[in-house]
Amino acid sequence: MSGKKTTGEKHLMFISGRAYPELAEEVAQHLGMDITPTKLHDFANGEIYARYLESVRGSDAFVMQSHTEPINKWIMEQLIMVDALKRASAKRITVVLPFFGYSRQDKKGRGREPITARLMADLFKTAGADRLMSVDLHTPQIQGFFDGPVDHLFALPVLHRYLSGKLDPANTTIVSPDTGRVRLAERWADQLGTAVAFIHKRRDLDVANQVKVHEVVGQVKGRTCVLIDDMIDTGGSICKAADALYEQGATNIIVAATHAIFSEPAVDRLKNSRISEVVVTNTLPIPEEKRFDKLTVLSIAPLIARAITEVFSDGSVTSLFEGDS
Amino acid sequence: MSGKKTTGEKHLMFISGRAYPELAEEVAQHLGMDITPTKLHDFANGEIYARYLESVRGSDAFVMQSHTEPINKWIMEQLIMVDALKRASAKRITVVLPFFGYSRQDKKGRGREPITARLMADLFKTAGADRLMSVDLHTPQIQGFFDGPVDHLFALPVLHRYLSGKLDPANTTIVSPDTGRVRLAERWADQLGTAVAFIHKRRDLDVANQVKVHEVVGQVKGRTCVLIDDMIDTGGSICKAADALYEQGATNIIVAATHAIFSEPAVDRLKNSRISEVVVTNTLPIPEEKRFDKLTVLSIAPLIARAITEVFSDGSVTSLFEGDS
Amino acid sequence: MSGKKTTGEKHLMFISGRAYPELAEEVAQHLGMDITPTKLHDFANGEIYARYLESVRGSDAFVMQSHTEPINKWIMEQLIMVDALKRASAKRITVVLPFFGYSRQDKKGRGREPITARLMADLFKTAGADRLMSVDLHTPQIQGFFDGPVDHLFALPVLHRYLSGKLDPANTTIVSPDTGRVRLAERWADQLGTAVAFIHKRRDLDVANQVKVHEVVGQVKGRTCVLIDDMIDTGGSICKAADALYEQGATNIIVAATHAIFSEPAVDRLKNSRISEVVVTNTLPIPEEKRFDKLTVLSIAPLIARAITEVFSDGSVTSLFEGDS
Amino acid sequence: MSGKKTTGEKHLMFISGRAYPELAEEVAQHLGMDITPTKLHDFANGEIYARYLESVRGSDAFVMQSHTEPINKWIMEQLIMVDALKRASAKRITVVLPFFGYSRQDKKGRGREPITARLMADLFKTAGADRLMSVDLHTPQIQGFFDGPVDHLFALPVLHRYLSGKLDPANTTIVSPDTGRVRLAERWADQLGTAVAFIHKRRDLDVANQVKVHEVVGQVKGRTCVLIDDMIDTGGSICKAADALYEQGATNIIVAATHAIFSEPAVDRLKNSRISEVVVTNTLPIPEEKRFDKLTVLSIAPLIARAITEVFSDGSVTSLFEGDS
Amino acid sequence: MSGKKTTGEKHLMFISGRAYPELAEEVAQHLGMDITPTKLHDFANGEIYARYLESVRGSDAFVMQSHTEPINKWIMEQLIMVDALKRASAKRITVVLPFFGYSRQDKKGRGREPITARLMADLFKTAGADRLMSVDLHTPQIQGFFDGPVDHLFALPVLHRYLSGKLDPANTTIVSPDTGRVRLAERWADQLGTAVAFIHKRRDLDVANQVKVHEVVGQVKGRTCVLIDDMIDTGGSICKAADALYEQGATNIIVAATHAIFSEPAVDRLKNSRISEVVVTNTLPIPEEKRFDKLTVLSIAPLIARAITEVFSDGSVTSLFEGDS
Amino acid sequence: MSGKKTTGEKHLMFISGRAYPELAEEVAQHLGMDITPTKLHDFANGEIYARYLESVRGSDAFVMQSHTEPINKWIMEQLIMVDALKRASAKRITVVLPFFGYSRQDKKGRGREPITARLMADLFKTAGADRLMSVDLHTPQIQGFFDGPVDHLFALPVLHRYLSGKLDPANTTIVSPDTGRVRLAERWADQLGTAVAFIHKRRDLDVANQVKVHEVVGQVKGRTCVLIDDMIDTGGSICKAADALYEQGATNIIVAATHAIFSEPAVDRLKNSRISEVVVTNTLPIPEEKRFDKLTVLSIAPLIARAITEVFSDGSVTSLFEGDS
Repeated sequence: MSGKKTTGEKHLMFISGRAYPELAEEVAQHLGMDITPTKLHDFANGEIYARYLESVRGSDAFVMQSHTEPINKWIMEQLIMVDALKRASAKRITVVLPFFGYSRQDKKGRGREPITARLMADLFKTAGADRLMSVDLHTPQIQGFFDGPVDHLFALPVLHRYLSGKLDPANTTIVSPDTGRVRLAERWADQLGTAVAFIHKRRDLDVANQVKVHEVVGQVKGRTCVLIDDMIDTGGSICKAADALYEQGATNIIVAATHAIFSEPAVDRLKNSRISEVVVTNTLPIPEEKRFDKLTVLSIAPLIARAITEVFSDGSVTSLFEGDS
Repeated sequence: MSGKKTTGEKHLMFISGRAYPELAEEVAQHLGMDITPTKLHDFANGEIYARYLESVRGSDAFVMQSHTEPINKWIMEQLIMVDALKRASAKRITVVLPFFGYSRQDKKGRGREPITARLMADLFKTAGADRLMSVDLHTPQIQGFFDGPVDHLFALPVLHRYLSGKLDPANTTIVSPDTGRVRLAERWADQLGTAVAFIHKRRDLDVANQVKVHEVVGQVKGRTCVLIDDMIDTGGSICKAADALYEQGATNIIVAATHAIFSEPAVDRLKNSRISEVVVTNTLPIPEEKRFDKLTVLSIAPLIARAITEVFSDGSVTSLFEGDS
Repeated sequence: MSGKKTTGEKHLMFISGRAYPELAEEVAQHLGMDITPTKLHDFANGEIYARYLESVRGSDAFVMQSHTEPINKWIMEQLIMVDALKRASAKRITVVLPFFGYSRQDKKGRGREPITARLMADLFKTAGADRLMSVDLHTPQIQGFFDGPVDHLFALPVLHRYLSGKLDPANTTIVSPDTGRVRLAERWADQLGTAVAFIHKRRDLDVANQVKVHEVVGQVKGRTCVLIDDMIDTGGSICKAADALYEQGATNIIVAATHAIFSEPAVDRLKNSRISEVVVTNTLPIPEEKRFDKLTVLSIAPLIARAITEVFSDGSVTSLFEGDS
Repeated sequence: MSGKKTTGEKHLMFISGRAYPELAEEVAQHLGMDITPTKLHDFANGEIYARYLESVRGSDAFVMQSHTEPINKWIMEQLIMVDALKRASAKRITVVLPFFGYSRQDKKGRGREPITARLMADLFKTAGADRLMSVDLHTPQIQGFFDGPVDHLFALPVLHRYLSGKLDPANTTIVSPDTGRVRLAERWADQLGTAVAFIHKRRDLDVANQVKVHEVVGQVKGRTCVLIDDMIDTGGSICKAADALYEQGATNIIVAATHAIFSEPAVDRLKNSRISEVVVTNTLPIPEEKRFDKLTVLSIAPLIARAITEVFSDGSVTSLFEGDS
Repeated sequence: MSGKKTTGEKHLMFISGRAYPELAEEVAQHLGMDITPTKLHDFANGEIYARYLESVRGSDAFVMQSHTEPINKWIMEQLIMVDALKRASAKRITVVLPFFGYSRQDKKGRGREPITARLMADLFKTAGADRLMSVDLHTPQIQGFFDGPVDHLFALPVLHRYLSGKLDPANTTIVSPDTGRVRLAERWADQLGTAVAFIHKRRDLDVANQVKVHEVVGQVKGRTCVLIDDMIDTGGSICKAADALYEQGATNIIVAATHAIFSEPAVDRLKNSRISEVVVTNTLPIPEEKRFDKLTVLSIAPLIARAITEVFSDGSVTSLFEGDS
Repeated sequence: MSGKKTTGEKHLMFISGRAYPELAEEVAQHLGMDITPTKLHDFANGEIYARYLESVRGSDAFVMQSHTEPINKWIMEQLIMVDALKRASAKRITVVLPFFGYSRQDKKGRGREPITARLMADLFKTAGADRLMSVDLHTPQIQGFFDGPVDHLFALPVLHRYLSGKLDPANTTIVSPDTGRVRLAERWADQLGTAVAFIHKRRDLDVANQVKVHEVVGQVKGRTCVLIDDMIDTGGSICKAADALYEQGATNIIVAATHAIFSEPAVDRLKNSRISEVVVTNTLPIPEEKRFDKLTVLSIAPLIARAITEVFSDGSVTSLFEGDS
């Protein structure tokens, strides 16, 4: 037969945008390899320039960016980096999104709105992404927005491992701050063997004009409450929930969430609240000025590194969470 | 200038598969026009044949199918009908799905599952659909599964109009049968000015082995409860919820849902329950043998006809629900 | 250079839908491996659920389904299985269709008909199929309906091997039951060194009102006739052809076809005919109640297994039929 | 409401490549309008230049090219013209192919062949074609190669109208020159009320080494035979068929075909044969030097013009052939 | 025939992002209509929200955004607005880009760079854009990056009309500031009947280490020089060119450019230069603090409004520049 | 785990069309392997037939064609060959275009022109090309026309290596024949350490009616001039430039270009000019009758072979030109 044959080889490369280099460094350490050197800078008018400083040809490339502020800039940078990988003949491109920007805009709440989370998935596909990897998507349906495989990682085991030693299941209640996260609270409660409760925001039927009552549902009196959510943005909802829990006799309140967006005035609100501890992961950067005494930041890097390793070696990402292959 | 000019014309055509011809007839009456005559039959081995009996060239075609059993057959029939429209030069094809089949499979609940609701959206796109129209999607994110416009209709006003005269808001509670529909219950309660409650299914912490307790949350004692859901499939969940409500002192229970799938043994369960009335729409066919005394079936046909008219005339579907243009 | 390298590996997986598990078992045995364990069941309203019970990540997956009745259900199941493979990061997905459903609807015979065979090819592409493998397509043009490689297998060698020992070429005629299969008859005759004939259905010019005359063309008197076709559906055409052959003096009639659809009343017709033997393959399931004394079923499994092996190992499928590489 | 409204207008434009301007002129006359002035020329190295000399914005453009020699050049010219229409904002582009080049390469006859007819359909789609219109495709399955509407016109009524006055049905036989066109012969015979026959080319069983016998099947003795085909390329097959018919006692032979490719040495063969008349259409140019006494060329222009008019006015092309709407 | 018919209607809507509302207002005034009211705001974490406040169904929508700083934000906003239009059933979407962001990244200058201008075109296509309209693209090849029509407008007539009265052609030279814009300078010179010159930056062959000499080519001594470019970013290149011209004896220097990016320190450089007048258009916003005495800003709004009118009414955009239809 | 595993293998195949087999032979020799045997011929009406004579399944296939006259035929042949590779299950298909046909039509110079270079890129993509490789594209933006990786090779080092020994940098000037290639001239001059100049074609301001003056810009008097261009088509531009250089006192003129199109009357013009040597590469065939004494043809084959080797082995093509990895 004509031609030439050689053994096939796979080449893992890990690449990072500029949004959160510290997380990338940590992931790379867990992978036991270097980040692919990349030149990234802004032109005078804000346009972004990208170039890989070594060949990425034939590689199995993972390109990570945390969608923190200025969020539109970092999304565009990641799109540009994917384009450069595609044109430089990377074999497979996985976009790693520790936090998936615009994930809350996952439906038309009203007529003539966009569905920006779907748009995001399509933009990455267009730029050249073969696969997505993300942590704790706002709704699991977002997996269906991408036309291809999505590795959906869960921070729950990370948070759970940290908290489980601190809690007495018999005296703990997992609390959802609104009706949208009750299922997540149930999953926590199932794992930890605790009770579950939630806050129901309703119009006060006795008072006019849309006054919202924060009604606590479930056993919280005299108990430690773990308020859970997928993200903390301005912190308003979480802090009002905490107030309601204390009013109902909770003795201690811990907050646990995956994504610490911490938009203004989240930090002040949390600091000044009666919450005893706030536990989050570092899917988004938390600069020194946003850190405070009762904040605990757990690293998501080991989980991302293990997931990348499974994907690269054709292992199973599901097994990281389900215990089967 | 070379060429010939004429005034443009728009031509509305309404077409139906074989799953539920009675609903199509009703919609056509409300539109004030005939259903486009179509030949549809099964070959000996079950393959479906379709042919339009008059020209559909240049038409603004709406092709409706209710995804009832045998559900895969009716989906395939609709796909084939769309293909025939595309190849016969219809100008625009809107797929009308009073009930969107497979809408509950809208995420990967576990690893290696499909996302069949997204697949469905893609199959219709591939066959040639330009637009979708559906009623009360299982989750609103499904709109984002289709790469194009989706007209999402709500049956709530239809159900609400029927029930509002029967209910005393001061003595009524809207109840969600599980934690997944609480937001829908809130929307009902907001419209009707009633209280809201829901059922929380949890592991009994005092009993081993996953015994689920149906805990009622909210004011139901001495009140009329309206149990709401998007669909009733086997009726198990709804009937257990009704039992729990009676145990907590509800005086009367009405069930309201958009999609009456009524799989076995839904009809027996509902008939034999203490529910006083079951109100549904006819997005799915309900044959005589599935009808029972306390069942009320409201027609969805006027809503669909109005939506089609708005779409055809470049009006606003949003305005049907929001009161603005 | 940054990154990590390992040797590439290929992983063959063979998966089957529920339409015809016995054929899948047989193929797996010839492959010397197990079928990938898969959970498949129907929900109460007929929607299909699918999940792979082990990781398929990075695999070269072959997913087989026989398009037997209920044909639309099994097609939809296969589409759903492909979607699940795609989302679970299978590297390459080959859809194996021993019988390609809707293959007879391969053109617009009249205006406003669909071309369902093309639609089928597009639906599999959309679901995620990279390649198709099928046996004896109704027309070879169907290969061109799929935008990608199609491995087109021929059952002729299987049937031929079985029949060649039984026939005296000098006294045998291969007969096409109508004008559409004459080329296939020629291929048979070329291989076996026999004569060829066919049945010409024409309006009787002497009699009014479209009476069809079955005119035999070629030497059949005193000879063994092998009536060949790609599929036997209701058996009407084949049995009328057999009658015409006996009228013209054929001494013995054998029927050979690849696809035994055997829709009602094929089995009765064949049993009650003067045909001495019916030889088919098992591309479609033939349950016990459809089996009869003079029926011989040859297995297509070895051919499919060999083709899968060639595809997996980058060998040549053409060489299975042409004797070259 | 914001914005501005005007009445919609449709604008038909008819455009032609350089392959066969005379046919385009004729079609334009039947349309009662001018061909859109277009600049087309070859650069020194054979690259083609195209530019429309008036605005085509918003037009319903039909761009026609006969795929005659040099066939690859004229195909490329038509692709380039479609690209220019797309980029100049034509609203809808219909590619008119009186003869569809490469239509005989509609399947993989052997392994590792292309399916060029499918490729052609895809190339026109890529360039920007919304629709195709063609006359007598080599196989009807080619309609399924295009992802969109195909208007498939039939020259049979044109040929039939011309011949019907000349023939005595009782004494005429329609003959297919090989087994591939028997169905077409049947359609002719059904329309004209004549007998049907065909030529069966087979290995002579009494003679070694693949000698082909041209066996006439059907009544031809003492009759006028009309040999029909979709195209005449080199004329070899048709002329051998004619010889066989004369040997079997045919008294007169007329040849009728849609596409007069007339590659060398078709004209000499036909001139020197005992065929009394050759009737073709002008889907392809027939220059003076290829014309001969017994050749009759019927114009396809009126049919194409009527089909364009139906398409432009959202009428029915099917009705041109079936008599219904 | 079944169905309903009405006359078609076209509905023009003009929509603007938040980057430069003043230009949108001006365009709307020239169009004689209002901008479609649109809600646009930033969430706490910088994500953008968009919603149209009236129905856009069936409209011919033009959505304009100037790609000024923060450029990535405004690009993303425009993408989101296009997605919302698509999902709200706009009939046709034209993206209007007075300045096309990232247009300078139109090739791989070195290995492993992106081609961001192509990516931009693809992102708009993916979001739902049917057409693009832009002014003075950095290279005309960018038109080829979009798979669809691009209306490429030229500011030259606007600038030329302003300057022509001020200049004595016999004593004027059009100067390109580098070798990349010589063709543009020639076009200016051809229109104005002036001489042409340009600046050639080269390594000084007599001096080491890449010292660049700004060599003036052409007649400038004692003449008025018009330095032209497509954009002024930081102004460095233009100011060095002006210096070189003065050194060569130019008596007066006017700068003319379409896009006034004016990144730091462009304004200071221009103010402090010996340039007598800087003429630009308002394709990008020029806030008060960037305005200076010798700056003249011509409005591009009339041109954009006329082009939109031509596109909406199926007129000719080419005719705005070529004088033919 | 179910299934079977083997080590992955890569298989390089090199394939050539019929346009320029000699170059293919040369490339194959440098690769140290045979060209894959391929059957290619023309049917009587000019349609092209292609078939690979050995299995290409799973191969990394490079299919090369020089776009020489008849250019449209050779382009179509290459498209057909790509289609056959795709359908024969080649794993990756790289289209090798030593000269990219239609590359000069890379923009709309006027309204209603095509952008044929973009169309070309899309046609190859549609046929199945995964990647492109080409030498000295007319404009680098053409890389952005292809949606995938483009390996852009530069002939400059080949030409430079040949010329550098012959030239005294201190007495040499690199000259661009018009304003479009000045940047290329600068790149040459930078590499060789020479001066640079160019020809400016302008309207003679003193003479009416568009008389073009060929004005030489830069030091040429008494120097050796190397006139460079990417291609020589009819040679008119180059020869007029040479005349102008001699008039300005150049002592010796050498012409260097990558693509020797040599359309009529290029050879006569060059032979009869005062140019002392013409140096080109063999990206296009130069038959004996187009060769002349002062013509030097350098082979591009080693460069193409090295680039193919880098691509096959996941090396770096950039490193061939930049000296880094």
